[in-house]
Amino acid sequence: MGSLDFVNSNDNLFNPEEFRKQAHQVVDFIANYYTQIESYPVLSQVKPGDIRNQLPNTAPSQSEPLQSILKDITNVIIPGMTHWQSPNFFAFFPINVSTAAFLGEMLCTGFNCAGFSWQVSPAITELEMVVMDWLANMINLPKSFLFSGGSGTGGGIIQNTTSDAIIMTLNAARDRVIKKIGTENMMKLVVYGSDQTHSTFEKVSKAVGINPNNIRLIPTVMKKGQPFSMCPIKLRKEIENDVAKGLVPLYLCGSVGTTSTNAVDPLEQLADVATEYGMWFHVDAAYAGSACICPEFRHFFNGIERVDSVSMNPHKWLLTGLGCCCLWVKRSDLLVKAMRVEPEYLKNEWSSTESNSVVNFKDWQLGATRRFNSIRLWLVLRSHGVENLQNHIRSDVRMAKDFELFVKSDPRFEIVVPRLFALVCFRLINPNNNNSEDDNELLNQKLLDLVNSSGKIYVSHTIVGGIYLLRFAVGATLTEECHVIAAWKVIQEGATQLLKN
Amino acid sequence: MGSLDFVNSNDNLFNPEEFRKQAHQVVDFIANYYTQIESYPVLSQVKPGDIRNQLPNTAPSQSEPLQSILKDITNVIIPGMTHWQSPNFFAFFPINVSTAAFLGEMLCTGFNCAGFSWQVSPAITELEMVVMDWLANMINLPKSFLFSGGSGTGGGIIQNTTSDAIIMTLNAARDRVIKKIGTENMMKLVVYGSDQTHSTFEKVSKAVGINPNNIRLIPTVMKKGQPFSMCPIKLRKEIENDVAKGLVPLYLCGSVGTTSTNAVDPLEQLADVATEYGMWFHVDAAYAGSACICPEFRHFFNGIERVDSVSMNPHKWLLTGLGCCCLWVKRSDLLVKAMRVEPEYLKNEWSSTESNSVVNFKDWQLGATRRFNSIRLWLVLRSHGVENLQNHIRSDVRMAKDFELFVKSDPRFEIVVPRLFALVCFRLINPNNNNSEDDNELLNQKLLDLVNSSGKIYVSHTIVGGIYLLRFAVGATLTEECHVIAAWKVIQEGATQLLKN
Repeated sequence: MGSLDFVNSNDNLFNPEEFRKQAHQVVDFIANYYTQIESYPVLSQVKPGDIRNQLPNTAPSQSEPLQSILKDITNVIIPGMTHWQSPNFFAFFPINVSTAAFLGEMLCTGFNCAGFSWQVSPAITELEMVVMDWLANMINLPKSFLFSGGSGTGGGIIQNTTSDAIIMTLNAARDRVIKKIGTENMMKLVVYGSDQTHSTFEKVSKAVGINPNNIRLIPTVMKKGQPFSMCPIKLRKEIENDVAKGLVPLYLCGSVGTTSTNAVDPLEQLADVATEYGMWFHVDAAYAGSACICPEFRHFFNGIERVDSVSMNPHKWLLTGLGCCCLWVKRSDLLVKAMRVEPEYLKNEWSSTESNSVVNFKDWQLGATRRFNSIRLWLVLRSHGVENLQNHIRSDVRMAKDFELFVKSDPRFEIVVPRLFALVCFRLINPNNNNSEDDNELLNQKLLDLVNSSGKIYVSHTIVGGIYLLRFAVGATLTEECHVIAAWKVIQEGATQLLKN
Repeated sequence: MGSLDFVNSNDNLFNPEEFRKQAHQVVDFIANYYTQIESYPVLSQVKPGDIRNQLPNTAPSQSEPLQSILKDITNVIIPGMTHWQSPNFFAFFPINVSTAAFLGEMLCTGFNCAGFSWQVSPAITELEMVVMDWLANMINLPKSFLFSGGSGTGGGIIQNTTSDAIIMTLNAARDRVIKKIGTENMMKLVVYGSDQTHSTFEKVSKAVGINPNNIRLIPTVMKKGQPFSMCPIKLRKEIENDVAKGLVPLYLCGSVGTTSTNAVDPLEQLADVATEYGMWFHVDAAYAGSACICPEFRHFFNGIERVDSVSMNPHKWLLTGLGCCCLWVKRSDLLVKAMRVEPEYLKNEWSSTESNSVVNFKDWQLGATRRFNSIRLWLVLRSHGVENLQNHIRSDVRMAKDFELFVKSDPRFEIVVPRLFALVCFRLINPNNNNSEDDNELLNQKLLDLVNSSGKIYVSHTIVGGIYLLRFAVGATLTEECHVIAAWKVIQEGATQLLKN
């Protein structure tokens, strides 16, 4: 039957010994990348089209050796990359990594199993249940969010991003309400966040077909003690208005650690409002959730026992690498009711079962298939252990604290919003004007451009309460105190240069 | 400032030399897994809870050595896995891999850069533009779907799954129509697929808030020449009905290679209908799209120049590993219009630019962040070259053809639906009855259970046109003719055993 014809062909696709040889080469390539990472400009300095222009228009017809590809990565790709793992990366939020995460991802890719339902790879589902319970325990979530020892409907799932977490919970919430008020009232549903809630909330709300006129982003202010937090009184007022108009409150998205300034919404008081109006209450703790593994930060989660769902992204600050958003819900049955479709070709003995032992995660997510996501998080938690992970958070916070002190000690600068975690929000003040916001904005824009185009560090910016400010987020795995000190020097020198002109 | 305190802590998280050492160990672990893969039962034989019961309830407080973790993977995890990469895996569709894909994923994970907008890592965006054009050329898509040389709004993006592709295009379509008919008519929108369209279409349609009463799945039949294809006449009739009721046709999802039986919808004729009613026409070619890199299969895409968007999943049949769904659109500006949200913290010099040089992929997808997805596909295309990839498809098809011949040569079996690609749809016929469908279903269910519980092979099933059938999909990377021959023997022996009783 011509079996011999194919052996060679398959051997080229995957031969364990050839795999071993080439994978070892790539391990060394990556290790070498990390030893040189500080020699690259943090923010890529290429111009649009620079990378594309160096690459051919069509795929090669014949195979090319690994060495040519690695050469192109060195000469073409790396200069076009902004190095998120550089110790001098302080922009946005970190997306930090660890050896453990890398090894976990190798295993996930190596096995390349799909786990849409329990049966098609039981270990994928069960390990995910285990690690989601582990992490829930680490951030001290109440039992109602756990698979073990809870109500029987609680549990967690790894999604790719916060958007996935919101799309699922928003659909579960809507499905429940629509069953009461009917499809004909779907356009009356209203969702609530604050003007500081991550932009993905607005995007997903539109994507799921919430009436674009019914997405409320409660304005926040620079209130002492709770800067840029959602105000429960304003929220209630908005809801009362909506209800008076015949609209139906559906979903509230609170935040613990907003993107701009790490604002924390008052969960307890918001839960009062959500309960009163029968809304689903979701908490997005994408970044700051990781800090809650330390007892001293856990109070930011006070009230979490009263929410319906909570998500956090270990891919930001818990060393897992991208693509790890953890979502916990109390009522997984509502997700399943809203999202289950079960074509014949996916049916099996266990596919319609929902119990403490069998979960079919395809009904907890939008996509049909899923990777062995949990293995990465499992390796991170086991390789480091809880105490080292706590130390890692504390070390970043300590460095951010030091940076905050640097800023405070230079009278040309000010801290705009008090620091809560490892993000410092600051700006340069123009001494030659009457503190006009426009002048200050221009000055800080220039400072941002100056330091970023130096390639030495990468910081980012935001605008809150009309104030343009710079964001300095400590959290890249390789960042040490010396990098923070050097970064501050770059910023100071930039300021000196700008103020001289 | 205490810099020395942290050096050790960070060293534990990521030290290039420790990374190198441990990653080499895991490479060997995975290579060894592949050398032993045939010794494991393909379908895991564990019972619900078996894996969880072997794992502790909480994360360890102290770090654990890699060796302990690998030991647990060997003893606990691997027995709980269904081995999708086994050469004896013939269920569902393949999700095949290659050394190149693994290396690409290592680089993606190693760099761990985010590429939501052009500036934050230009190479991520530009390499994706390049490989999407490469693959578009390989399947001979018209220029209107390409970045280079097209209309200026065409192009492609790598999404995770088909669901992501549908959610984006459905939103683009809706946004365009809503601007004409107003939000108040949103509940009048209707989407169309067939009863063979992948279940994710129904799921996503619900998730985006299409009125659940307005999701039309046109029934298909076992028509000669076009078994289980969507009938344009039935579709038109359904649309006419809807329009007469005051509803608004929005979106048509056609399929090239359905999941159950690889049915191919007649794109040309469906395009006529879509054009007439101003619908967005998307084609899901998740599995069979890969075959279209071979000229002899390309005719299944006839008419593709008239659709609005098309998606295919190289993670199924083009050796990339999971998480690679390629979506091409003609009017990316409609995606961007529908989905762009631009918070201040993500703004940069290029973030609102859309041109031939700068693309900000965050506006082409639901989630806010994205990995360096293209590097994996790039390595696969370069390492193999187009000709080897064509040979890989042809080799799988040839093996499936042989399996089809085996089935045809055994009078106890029948081919239920003629084979088009590398999926064979067949069943055992009960000779002791009057060919009652119920008896046949039971018999084939038993056969499925028998062969799968042997652990020797894994095949799956479906029901079409009331007929329960077995699906034998050739495509695991390691599968060679000898495995197909052995699998057929397992099935024949199972049949003999069942028919004896």
